[in-house]
Amino acid sequence: MHRIAVIPGDGIGPEVIEQALLVLDKVSSKFGVKFEYIFIDAGGCAIDKYGVPIREEDLELVKKCEATLLGAVGGPKWDGLPGNLRPEQALLKLRGGLKVYANLRPAVLYDELKDSSPLKKEIVDKGIDILVVRELIGGMYFGPKGREVKNGDEVAYDTEVYSKSEVRRIAKVAFEAARKRKKKVTSVDKANILESSRLWRETVEEVAKNYPDVELAHMYVDNASMQLVKDPSQFDVILTSNMFGDILSDEASMIVGSIGMLASASLGEGSVGLYEPIHGTAPDIAGQDLANPIATILSAAMMLRYSFEMEDAAKAIENAVKIALKEGYRTKDIYTENCKLVGTKQMGKIICENI
Amino acid sequence: MHRIAVIPGDGIGPEVIEQALLVLDKVSSKFGVKFEYIFIDAGGCAIDKYGVPIREEDLELVKKCEATLLGAVGGPKWDGLPGNLRPEQALLKLRGGLKVYANLRPAVLYDELKDSSPLKKEIVDKGIDILVVRELIGGMYFGPKGREVKNGDEVAYDTEVYSKSEVRRIAKVAFEAARKRKKKVTSVDKANILESSRLWRETVEEVAKNYPDVELAHMYVDNASMQLVKDPSQFDVILTSNMFGDILSDEASMIVGSIGMLASASLGEGSVGLYEPIHGTAPDIAGQDLANPIATILSAAMMLRYSFEMEDAAKAIENAVKIALKEGYRTKDIYTENCKLVGTKQMGKIICENI
Ligand SMILES: CC(C)[C@H](C(=O)O)[C@@H](O)C(=O)O
Ligand SMILES: CC(C)[C@H](C(=O)O)[C@@H](O)C(=O)O
Repeated sequence: MHRIAVIPGDGIGPEVIEQALLVLDKVSSKFGVKFEYIFIDAGGCAIDKYGVPIREEDLELVKKCEATLLGAVGGPKWDGLPGNLRPEQALLKLRGGLKVYANLRPAVLYDELKDSSPLKKEIVDKGIDILVVRELIGGMYFGPKGREVKNGDEVAYDTEVYSKSEVRRIAKVAFEAARKRKKKVTSVDKANILESSRLWRETVEEVAKNYPDVELAHMYVDNASMQLVKDPSQFDVILTSNMFGDILSDEASMIVGSIGMLASASLGEGSVGLYEPIHGTAPDIAGQDLANPIATILSAAMMLRYSFEMEDAAKAIENAVKIALKEGYRTKDIYTENCKLVGTKQMGKIICENI
Repeated sequence: MHRIAVIPGDGIGPEVIEQALLVLDKVSSKFGVKFEYIFIDAGGCAIDKYGVPIREEDLELVKKCEATLLGAVGGPKWDGLPGNLRPEQALLKLRGGLKVYANLRPAVLYDELKDSSPLKKEIVDKGIDILVVRELIGGMYFGPKGREVKNGDEVAYDTEVYSKSEVRRIAKVAFEAARKRKKKVTSVDKANILESSRLWRETVEEVAKNYPDVELAHMYVDNASMQLVKDPSQFDVILTSNMFGDILSDEASMIVGSIGMLASASLGEGSVGLYEPIHGTAPDIAGQDLANPIATILSAAMMLRYSFEMEDAAKAIENAVKIALKEGYRTKDIYTENCKLVGTKQMGKIICENI
């Protein structure tokens, strides 16, 4: 029996989580394993209910679970609130509280969805299969920040800060992952300008010594943002900081043409993990049975793989998704001519049936 | 008579500058104006000659000129040097020393070069004409940075810091520019996480009140990196910080398919300006008459426009470039089937003849 903290969140969050849970139920009966779901409010809905993005007692509850499955949090409704009262604060508290320092974001181009990529056929035909390994609990997100008045001028600051030990542990994750893939790590930084990037680069070099079988390349972040569009097939594992990873993983998700398909796992020491789709709350389509549940369903698959060591079940889900796509089922975001348009619920149902 | 500091720099820098100067010579005879060129060493070549990226006395010389035309600086040869001895340091010293806080980077898709864009025809057909207005002498590039040992762990940091007055002046540049264009400013930040971004957003809102005729939108940087690929036609002026601007302007330059075509102007108060192509030193093709001189030639045109108020001459250069493209002349980087392949020098010559 596995205890899972389930955080539906805001916007389309609850709808996509619902389908992921149905998939987990199917896995449960098929693989003879039990899941207990602990539902937690976090994000905008928690602000509305309790006045805070996540209550301390709820954070403690989450920490006691084996893994967390999250939909999405945030929305324009809460955008005007001060920094510490925003829905996103719940995400930071969860990430920091669970100490999940390694955010794994696979950006894979599905053959069936090639037409949805904004890139030209020549580029896309070379294939895209990138794993972004983003540091998740350091850098500017968590460094000292504040505001002050200096000579009558208001000043605000954030600090990008990294220690060698932080870089070392995330670099290890990237190299280990690369070993199971195409054996290439591209570490992205801005070492020509940032002191923190220089420490990053040095430390990555040190870690690389233990992985002589993995090729290491360094790339400046401005160049990386170009190369992702120019020739994404050159990348295997991209290793980068929290801030740069935020930008580049979104770019990577766009070039595969289907942010509604992309899952993520955030891992710490041991088997703890936070699993969430890469997409946001999409308030404009919330509650209309239009959202694509696949990213969340694939996040659940990642949970089975990384937190519960249920590789077979994870593969069964991934396979079921592929079959649904092959059979031509598409939610609106990935719809192209001659496919079968389905809603959130039907897509979930079809995937369940394929397991 | 106008005094121009000319900084050829490293790699392909000297070759592309050579062609830009020939173009300026042609403008000189055609428009009855005299240019005096003060040649300055900066970047890797200055490190090799003098042991520093730029000598203080040379920086003083540059400051005494009316405008600066720069090729490109840097290269792998100097990558191993400590931060303050890198070629890029020359750029920072020039930008900071000249106080050019507003970096204007137009990313325009030329009809003739549509095929060079990595984006699909449907997207490109909607047109791309973006002006990135990047803050250039603040943020993480210039904020406090350093290294220290904390509890036996080495730590490095950089500070993203912005004051209201800094944001105000760059925002004004963006709104003024938008007025002369499609009247839309998209301000890019990470206000859901960064305190400096919240100050940025507030201040941009304040400035916007003076420009009721200009539409203002805010966008998170991760979303902006997606939207640039998904639908670049939605952007007119992008206003952003030094770090985010570095990343997004490179991405914007790649989607128009021709980084060898893109010029930039860095402006401060009055008519002072630093003009340089967006591309780097391209050491792999340096000295082989392969580089595209157009970005530098168009940078010279921007110099005529912004520093010398020679709009007619600027237009004459831009027109000459368009004619060369229309006639099918292409350097290798923008070559497509059935065009006429030419080298750096010949491209320069053809453009001169068209003026
Ligand atoms: C919502 C936001 C705080 C978050 C981040 O910046 O990390 C999101 O963009 C993401 O990438 O998960
Ligand atoms: C060379 C580097 C320091 C520079 C920058 O980061 O500003 C370059 O990338 C640019 O955009 O002009």
